[in-house]
Amino acid sequence: MNIFITGGTGYIGSKLSKRLIGEGHNVAILKREASDLNNLSEFKDQITFYNYEGDFSSMNAAVEDFKPDLGIHLASLYVYSHSAEDIDALIDSNLRLGLHLTEALVKNGCKKLVNTGTSFEHFKNDDYNPVNLYAATKNAFSALLKYYTKSAQLSALTIKLFDTYGPDDNRGKLVSYLIGALSSGEEVQLSGGDQIVDYAHVDDVVNAYLKAIELLMNLDAGYYSEFGGVTGERVTLKQLVALIEEVSGKKLKVQFGAKPYRFREVMKPWSNFWELPDLPPKKSLKEGLKELIDEGN
Amino acid sequence: MNIFITGGTGYIGSKLSKRLIGEGHNVAILKREASDLNNLSEFKDQITFYNYEGDFSSMNAAVEDFKPDLGIHLASLYVYSHSAEDIDALIDSNLRLGLHLTEALVKNGCKKLVNTGTSFEHFKNDDYNPVNLYAATKNAFSALLKYYTKSAQLSALTIKLFDTYGPDDNRGKLVSYLIGALSSGEEVQLSGGDQIVDYAHVDDVVNAYLKAIELLMNLDAGYYSEFGGVTGERVTLKQLVALIEEVSGKKLKVQFGAKPYRFREVMKPWSNFWELPDLPPKKSLKEGLKELIDEGN
Repeated sequence: MNIFITGGTGYIGSKLSKRLIGEGHNVAILKREASDLNNLSEFKDQITFYNYEGDFSSMNAAVEDFKPDLGIHLASLYVYSHSAEDIDALIDSNLRLGLHLTEALVKNGCKKLVNTGTSFEHFKNDDYNPVNLYAATKNAFSALLKYYTKSAQLSALTIKLFDTYGPDDNRGKLVSYLIGALSSGEEVQLSGGDQIVDYAHVDDVVNAYLKAIELLMNLDAGYYSEFGGVTGERVTLKQLVALIEEVSGKKLKVQFGAKPYRFREVMKPWSNFWELPDLPPKKSLKEGLKELIDEGN
Repeated sequence: MNIFITGGTGYIGSKLSKRLIGEGHNVAILKREASDLNNLSEFKDQITFYNYEGDFSSMNAAVEDFKPDLGIHLASLYVYSHSAEDIDALIDSNLRLGLHLTEALVKNGCKKLVNTGTSFEHFKNDDYNPVNLYAATKNAFSALLKYYTKSAQLSALTIKLFDTYGPDDNRGKLVSYLIGALSSGEEVQLSGGDQIVDYAHVDDVVNAYLKAIELLMNLDAGYYSEFGGVTGERVTLKQLVALIEEVSGKKLKVQFGAKPYRFREVMKPWSNFWELPDLPPKKSLKEGLKELIDEGN
């Protein structure tokens, strides 16, 4: 299939692109002119790239040229706690880009889209209670997307991601940071540590996107559904630190309580969701961490 | 109270502004530099105007200066059937402006907002099935707005409007058009005419906004609710034409079926809603039409 990916230069997008290429698909990535291609270095010759200039016409030219059978929308701007200055960029990245994509797909006869949402739309396990404005823009985008599923026979699935981790992760997320601190011996200042975290391994996340594609190809026109995905093993932040110490046989210099919990800190992740059906077995957190530590990631 | 209105130069906004001034409130209107002030001619000296330049800082400067006790968000861009070229303007008018407004209100300590939605979010009486992209942007905005009610103690009500009519209506809507055709004798080409229409008189719509303000001032912080409003007497388009003929004693030259029904034409307006409580008695459609015809509107 011809698969058109936004956010394909990012961490999850690049792992997914590599896997899709491995399975014989043609992959195009929509990127910004200045996008860093480091995540794609070894296989970037096998990808068609298009530049998005923030307008519909650059999006449409890409879609028209590539003729995708399916779109995967992973691009987004993440801001945990926004300030007024972030609003325009959040709108452009999380609403306008996706709307340009959806319009262009439909206009060019592509009727399948895998979209990416966030578990943060469900603070306190509520039907809708966005942790932050980022999560609100994700929810708002799904309201726009649904219009096309209702009116233009697009079928779409939204995967609402939890946290993710894995090898080669340059996003500055906590797991990589803690594993880095194992060798550097650096002191790590954390909040209370009683919050439950949910880290899914990137390979399992990629498996979920593949499953979503499979599902989508068999769906009737105009279908829309949302899935929570991918949930990992849930442990408190304190337990995560202990697990890393156990697996590595080293001690971390962690100060719990050195920082306050953040505004609207998620103490217990969303649990009231359906995961995608028939996912392959997941990597255990212990195994995933062991691999990272062994590889010195 | 200090009441800050977006869309205040429009048809409903101007009638509402006039009424609020009459009730002793201080009214500020956020407008575009090029906005037409014709609807406000007789009372524009009693209004404070601010120009919105599409960015947060012009919005924030206005809100900071006026210090509103309450905001009323009526500004929007209406496109029945969008084309790709409308997308950016729909985002800017129906999402970005409202988000700038909400952020600025909260930032400056104003915790009350009356927002305007559309009954078109509920095609076929569904919980969510937007008739068009316009309606989808209205729903998407409410997803953004809810973030502030959940996180920043803003209380907000959304009034989801049906169609409206009344004197001095220069929006080119059907009722004014038909009444104009009474004197011009012009032939009017319509679709099948079996669709049920719901026209509320603008005075009743203004009453609903006043009721929403009253409700909002008594609500707890962080409250959000939506109301269907304002519903008028429901008649088919054919019955509306017959009523205008009956009231005026003249015949209209209407050709029903000369045009096809539009894509996703609403044959039966949304009915599964709560109206605002304790609204004053409404003007009957017959009476409202009679006034328009007598005044030669």
